[in-house]
Amino acid sequence: MFAYDLTLVDILAARRRIKSVVAETPLTFSYELSELTGAQCWFKMENLQFTGSFKLQGAANNILSLTPERLAKGLICASAGNHSQAVAFMAARIGAKALVVLPEGTPRNKIEALKKYGCETIIHGPTYDDAQNHAYRLARENDLTFVHAYLDPITIAGQGTATLEALLAEPDFDAIAVPAGGGGLMIGQGVAAKGVNPGIKVVGVQSQASPPWYYTFRDQRRRNDVEFKESIAEGLYGVIEEPNATEAFKCIDEILLVSEESILAAMRWMLETHHLIIEASAAVTIAALREHGAAFQGRKVMLLLSGSNVDADLVRQALDSPE
Amino acid sequence: MFAYDLTLVDILAARRRIKSVVAETPLTFSYELSELTGAQCWFKMENLQFTGSFKLQGAANNILSLTPERLAKGLICASAGNHSQAVAFMAARIGAKALVVLPEGTPRNKIEALKKYGCETIIHGPTYDDAQNHAYRLARENDLTFVHAYLDPITIAGQGTATLEALLAEPDFDAIAVPAGGGGLMIGQGVAAKGVNPGIKVVGVQSQASPPWYYTFRDQRRRNDVEFKESIAEGLYGVIEEPNATEAFKCIDEILLVSEESILAAMRWMLETHHLIIEASAAVTIAALREHGAAFQGRKVMLLLSGSNVDADLVRQALDSPE
Repeated sequence: MFAYDLTLVDILAARRRIKSVVAETPLTFSYELSELTGAQCWFKMENLQFTGSFKLQGAANNILSLTPERLAKGLICASAGNHSQAVAFMAARIGAKALVVLPEGTPRNKIEALKKYGCETIIHGPTYDDAQNHAYRLARENDLTFVHAYLDPITIAGQGTATLEALLAEPDFDAIAVPAGGGGLMIGQGVAAKGVNPGIKVVGVQSQASPPWYYTFRDQRRRNDVEFKESIAEGLYGVIEEPNATEAFKCIDEILLVSEESILAAMRWMLETHHLIIEASAAVTIAALREHGAAFQGRKVMLLLSGSNVDADLVRQALDSPE
Repeated sequence: MFAYDLTLVDILAARRRIKSVVAETPLTFSYELSELTGAQCWFKMENLQFTGSFKLQGAANNILSLTPERLAKGLICASAGNHSQAVAFMAARIGAKALVVLPEGTPRNKIEALKKYGCETIIHGPTYDDAQNHAYRLARENDLTFVHAYLDPITIAGQGTATLEALLAEPDFDAIAVPAGGGGLMIGQGVAAKGVNPGIKVVGVQSQASPPWYYTFRDQRRRNDVEFKESIAEGLYGVIEEPNATEAFKCIDEILLVSEESILAAMRWMLETHHLIIEASAAVTIAALREHGAAFQGRKVMLLLSGSNVDADLVRQALDSPE
């Protein structure tokens, strides 16, 4: 079976490749969350990354590893979210052409944001899968490079640079908490963390509304036959594809679930305590520390804050939510 | 006349003194503001400082320069805002006692935030001046050290470390824009900037609702006989005291005024574009670049984002404001 076989060397190589084009985001101690939980809590702030999310490091590592010939043919991706912003930003940054395929019903402001970077957009099909299949077809027909958001080892290695940077600054973390969606982000952090120190506990966090990683780890086999409900953490929503399940078993220790209410409460807590806007998908790590604090008592923990791209309406909803 | 005579050496000494207890905040390029204004805009993000504002570096430099004997007697300050948070944080950090005098009507949550740090609070008098005079009296009677928020060269030198850090990372700024209130923050940045490179243009920014610096610079003499109106940038509100006017003439090139509407619009722009909550007092620099962009065309500009301590109500107001 195809496997990534990523190691610390891949993450180090990614860092060398992308460091001149991405931000080295802050790693900052939270007195407030530490007091609340009894753990020593540090934030790795990819919410402050250019384009507002960790997707940039993955896209950058992917795109900057292409030959000039491949780059000249152009890039394509399918995403209405942070990944397409990252691909569009990188394409503009290095002067490459990019095409983004979006499903019908993609909000106008997301399309405008992409056009701002000068990239072309195509609307195709009612669902994300339709858009992605169309993008695959266009890539084949026009010899474009398809930049995958999470199912590609070079993307995942780029994303893992977040934890590498954190460990270069503070090498003695006991645990790291990372959002679990498609799994790319989580696996990247796992490879980086275990590569530096196999003793670091790597914990993925999902919403109860989209829990396949939780059951996959509980039963030690890939499980997508779980109940999916609507989630505000839409970036973490969905099933697990191979080889991400196989890779995750190598470097992830545990999956924690948090409720939708506690995700919204964590967003509110960040707004009011740290005056930071973070995505629901990022707030799951805060929620996990608040809900499962006892498990981290006395330990030095890095929470990966994955992004900040939140609509104003959800910010209002968080401000108005119960404490 | 008493003068501060601050130089780059004082800022460098402050940096050495405080660097282990304060955060080195990010200096980050804003593609979005740069595109909007035609300048190359960088943010020095004291909004991400511990306690949420630049006041920490001033309080830290002040408090860490005291002898153990003075520290043992205890600290006192008068402020309902960011300065008291900074003094309380530093006192807790080094195990000193602190007493904060607050005027009647200080919001409950501000008092709770101070108590969280373990410091004592006293409510005295209807106005801030009453509270401050009471604090002066208590300092004399009990031999406490009064930590001033902006009229003390050691405080100002600590605050100037923000621009020093920025120039160590990016030495070739053409201009810096900094909020102008009591003047301490502005003078600190001016001393640091001119000390590194006298060619850097240092611009202070005030709200039209509290414009004494603007008229002071226009007429080249201290002018407090100007019209004051209600302002959302309450941290910048008030008259100019000596020797800050004299010091400002040495190191500040120009004062810009921005409207209250444009301050709120700048807060909204930061929320929606960078997903950052900044104080109205901090948003004046963003407003200045948006209103007076032509003056910065093609230049490399550092905007000092001074703080993030905003009530949820003002965040809501900004989200609901016109674009």
